[in-house]
Amino acid sequence: MKVVQTKEEVRAWRRASDQPLGLIPTMGFLHEGHLSLVRRARDDCARTAASIFVNPAQFGSEEDLETYPRDLPRDLGLLEAEGVDLVWTPTQEEMYGDEFQTWVTVESVAQPLEGAERPGHFRGVATVVSKLFHVFEPQRAYFGQKDAQQAVVLSRMTRDLDFSVEIVVCPTAREADGLAMSSRNTYLGADERRAAPVLYRALQGASKAYEGGMREADGLRLLMYETLLAEPLVKTQYVSVANPETLEEQFGVVERALVSLAVFLGKTRLIDNVVLGGGLLA
Amino acid sequence: MKVVQTKEEVRAWRRASDQPLGLIPTMGFLHEGHLSLVRRARDDCARTAASIFVNPAQFGSEEDLETYPRDLPRDLGLLEAEGVDLVWTPTQEEMYGDEFQTWVTVESVAQPLEGAERPGHFRGVATVVSKLFHVFEPQRAYFGQKDAQQAVVLSRMTRDLDFSVEIVVCPTAREADGLAMSSRNTYLGADERRAAPVLYRALQGASKAYEGGMREADGLRLLMYETLLAEPLVKTQYVSVANPETLEEQFGVVERALVSLAVFLGKTRLIDNVVLGGGLLA
Repeated sequence: MKVVQTKEEVRAWRRASDQPLGLIPTMGFLHEGHLSLVRRARDDCARTAASIFVNPAQFGSEEDLETYPRDLPRDLGLLEAEGVDLVWTPTQEEMYGDEFQTWVTVESVAQPLEGAERPGHFRGVATVVSKLFHVFEPQRAYFGQKDAQQAVVLSRMTRDLDFSVEIVVCPTAREADGLAMSSRNTYLGADERRAAPVLYRALQGASKAYEGGMREADGLRLLMYETLLAEPLVKTQYVSVANPETLEEQFGVVERALVSLAVFLGKTRLIDNVVLGGGLLA
Repeated sequence: MKVVQTKEEVRAWRRASDQPLGLIPTMGFLHEGHLSLVRRARDDCARTAASIFVNPAQFGSEEDLETYPRDLPRDLGLLEAEGVDLVWTPTQEEMYGDEFQTWVTVESVAQPLEGAERPGHFRGVATVVSKLFHVFEPQRAYFGQKDAQQAVVLSRMTRDLDFSVEIVVCPTAREADGLAMSSRNTYLGADERRAAPVLYRALQGASKAYEGGMREADGLRLLMYETLLAEPLVKTQYVSVANPETLEEQFGVVERALVSLAVFLGKTRLIDNVVLGGGLLA
């Protein structure tokens, strides 16, 4: 496995072979979710590359950029064990350079949910992913369903700007108790960690009600609020039943829906989601 | 020469050969300026392609989108005579599709000059050129120095977003009397056309003063204002002596400068520029 720091090294590696490339963009501190993306990429593509870059542009000024967990040696070991061909670990300076001033902004699908709670977040994501797409020129890029709105935003960006890359969205990896894997889970204290599976229980409650015939968006939201309220450590930020393509909040009867939520457990912000009525996001 | 309407046809043509491609993006109604870009691209690149698309996203609501001159048969004849290999003539629907909502925005270099007079213009330009770069994947793209700020904005965008394309800026083509060639010159009435060379005379006045040792930005601007004021049909919008990289307006002594101006002649808006202290923009 090749580990490089500069764009020029990535480009040189890329030019050396025109075999299809699968890209897994990450912020490091890898977990089983990331590795499942790598495995899927290895199945799909002759070559696989990952990037590890904690992207300042997608963090708000009040957010956890400074404390975001990092462990590069461990990450490289995990990626090497999965057979990744190249890893790019740019510095901030290498990524953004001097006088950086160009932004990629996705409008309506980036506005609700995470976009409403994290102003500028998706602008940072769309911009850095555009740059990654230009540096790597991958045929496919892999993202987790856990960050469902990110997947929708990047799919929209890819279509709108005519990137010739396929966005592949892979299932959320979960701990045995249902907690969605996230690098931020490491922030949780013991009590918070014990409480954290309530997110998935709330989503499962909505799923089961849906399977039992419940189609009222308000009813599904109410069910989830009730489950979350029963856990005193949780402070709910939003509970949403949204159109899976437009991310518009739904009212009345729904046939397909992205059901998602965001909560604080102490200072740690967690998100999770399921899609009702079929399939992953695309 | 192949003439195609869809992105898919462009991509299929592109995939059929990996020879270096030079792209000339245009809004059609071609003149000698466009053709000089084509010739330069033909000299530099094994294959050349042009696009003809009057891009609504770069016109303000009060601007001349509806009346912008168009003559596709003539344009295709000119491009064929120059030996262009492929021309893409997309419809608005093909270019933007449904629910388009992703924009590329360049910040500080897009704010003064044309950006101040034409809000949203460079957002439209940067977005459509990003799309063209993704559809064509050219090695080089050719733009005229006449639209100097556009060249600076696109160079900045290309660096910031890591596009692997070289932006080539070619000299402004001029009529015998010095008027910079522009598709919009066709709007000019006979009296306006006779008055129009005053733009270049004003720029030449500044150039000659600079060559004679004048280095005061205010003095250069004043000289140009005086020349323009002597022509009663001209209404000056701006006269600028700016840093050629940052486009910040300069005060005091200048060694290099982008000297530019924008005027109305009746309802027709014209721009022109020269670079003092060496070379084209890069």
